[in-house]
Amino acid sequence: MSTTRSPVVDIHTHVYPPSYVELLRSRSTIPYIRSFPPSTSLRLVILPAEDTESTARGRPVGAEYYDLNEKIRFMDTHSIDVSVISLANPWLDWLPKDEAAKAAQDINDEVNGECGRFPGRLFAFGTLPLSGGPEVIAREIARLKGLRYMRGVILGTTGLGKGLDDPELLPIFRSLQDAKLPVFLHPHYGLPASVWGERAGDYGHVLPLALGFPLETTIAVTRMILSGVFDEAPDLEMILAHSGGTLPFLAGRIESCIEHDAHLKAGGRLGAGRKTVWDVLRRNIYLDAVVYSEVGLKAAIQASGEDRIMFGTDHPFFPPLEEGGGKWASVETNYVAIKGALGSSEEAKGALGANAIRVLNLA
Amino acid sequence: MSTTRSPVVDIHTHVYPPSYVELLRSRSTIPYIRSFPPSTSLRLVILPAEDTESTARGRPVGAEYYDLNEKIRFMDTHSIDVSVISLANPWLDWLPKDEAAKAAQDINDEVNGECGRFPGRLFAFGTLPLSGGPEVIAREIARLKGLRYMRGVILGTTGLGKGLDDPELLPIFRSLQDAKLPVFLHPHYGLPASVWGERAGDYGHVLPLALGFPLETTIAVTRMILSGVFDEAPDLEMILAHSGGTLPFLAGRIESCIEHDAHLKAGGRLGAGRKTVWDVLRRNIYLDAVVYSEVGLKAAIQASGEDRIMFGTDHPFFPPLEEGGGKWASVETNYVAIKGALGSSEEAKGALGANAIRVLNLA
Repeated sequence: MSTTRSPVVDIHTHVYPPSYVELLRSRSTIPYIRSFPPSTSLRLVILPAEDTESTARGRPVGAEYYDLNEKIRFMDTHSIDVSVISLANPWLDWLPKDEAAKAAQDINDEVNGECGRFPGRLFAFGTLPLSGGPEVIAREIARLKGLRYMRGVILGTTGLGKGLDDPELLPIFRSLQDAKLPVFLHPHYGLPASVWGERAGDYGHVLPLALGFPLETTIAVTRMILSGVFDEAPDLEMILAHSGGTLPFLAGRIESCIEHDAHLKAGGRLGAGRKTVWDVLRRNIYLDAVVYSEVGLKAAIQASGEDRIMFGTDHPFFPPLEEGGGKWASVETNYVAIKGALGSSEEAKGALGANAIRVLNLA
Repeated sequence: MSTTRSPVVDIHTHVYPPSYVELLRSRSTIPYIRSFPPSTSLRLVILPAEDTESTARGRPVGAEYYDLNEKIRFMDTHSIDVSVISLANPWLDWLPKDEAAKAAQDINDEVNGECGRFPGRLFAFGTLPLSGGPEVIAREIARLKGLRYMRGVILGTTGLGKGLDDPELLPIFRSLQDAKLPVFLHPHYGLPASVWGERAGDYGHVLPLALGFPLETTIAVTRMILSGVFDEAPDLEMILAHSGGTLPFLAGRIESCIEHDAHLKAGGRLGAGRKTVWDVLRRNIYLDAVVYSEVGLKAAIQASGEDRIMFGTDHPFFPPLEEGGGKWASVETNYVAIKGALGSSEEAKGALGANAIRVLNLA
């Protein structure tokens, strides 16, 4: 960090390293990468709703997906000093069980090595071999601790196939807690397509991306809270994508429903000593600032505290529709929201970078 | 309004008038009301997930569901001067087509008559005979205009069966706009049960109520925005239950996704002259204050404006788990949120009652 201004850290920024691209190119059903003749350019298709002619079959895979020189260029354009890169969805939960361990090792080693090419600029969240089962996952968690640039793991919402409130995941959450590896929780599957209605195709990718993603995150973390994960692993650290989905806005309603549910109370679950949703937000959860409005960001800040907010970009997604260089509107919107909510205060410096440096040990 | 303090109006408060209870008692599949021997007390079962022994088959139907003397007593206990009552979900979209017109008339007449028993204390939102088809609906809208205490309509998210972005609903939205009858949008169906996972039963009704309801509302209104309803019926007024579900928090993300969607732009839909999500929030939408936190309420206020927020209770739902009189925690939480967000300012008076009096013409 050669500048005298306050450092900016992007904790929500994705990469498809070449070995992951090859893995996805070897497939013929989603998730997959291939070209659709007559075009020779590669396209990434990850969701059923994208796998149709009418949606142009997913999205183009350009150099910004896999070439970290492009990441650095993007960072320089947007005054970002450090990025904590993570594998982009869909990650590895779809791999055959016996391929999981090696695929995760290869990808984590490759990402770690790429970070080493740009010392001080890049760190990473590792990827877990979820389909490999608990022992394979535990071994990779131990291995990640030894990789120089790894600062946590990225996790989707499926866990071992039954979601994040699965009791079989609890030892894994405890391992991550004990290894002091924060979990970056990120959505991928959205919601069942039926909820978008017959006209969803008219609206491009708006409904699954704008609503499906944050609602998926909200449901996943609420199920974790209800199952008592944060009571059982009290020091587990979670960074929630997209400012928690909608958790800051709904926390009050969730708490009220817990307090008024006769069945829940009768079951003895979530008793007097439980952590409330607000406790979890202020002790276990960090929120990225990828919410695209001052309204949302202020709610996130008020819910978790300004010392738990971390700037992010979601690069390489949401590029400008028009070709050409310059700054991305999607990134500027989040910068503007931070400035609007926090001005140029110390808290703004925290949200822009200092919180991430402290929590993820990036100094 | 006999007090000198600022009037309090509850715009989110439900009733099951006796004719509706009889209608639900005549059924043997959800939605229905019946007793389960050996008990002789009536229980209401409205969702598939409630229709099991393990969830005690729905909830007890007490006098507070149908007796408006109980409503008045509740209002007095909580310093509520005026209530705008609405039929509780599931409303009438499940009725056979040829029964819809009469059922809606009977219920609307009965509710209107009940309001007349307590002049100045009760007004109402009417119920539409949705399964009757567009002409039957249009006739009931015209009839509602002639009922003395009716001040709008309550609407679920199914519309004519295809959701609220159905082009066939547009004439109905235009009729409601022209009749100056605001639409109180309220959830009922939640989300497909698969999203709650295998352990959902452990959590009582928390997931469908705390998340399913607000997420359903968010999806419904976003589909309306994307389909251009608010461009085609530019003066349509909507009051969104539960502070808009999560719309205030997600508005920025929805806008960003619209602006970055190549498919949507290429289709010419939502072009340069469109209303943004923020425009709709500030020109067409009112938000109730039933969000159970200052965090959520502040986001709602910032999104729509303090002159568009309206107090509500969700009575008779969310009673205290313990028997006994006194104030309900669910209501107090929302009072406290208003005080926290707005203090005792003029804006607080607006949110507590003056906004509803102005918008719904309750004076």
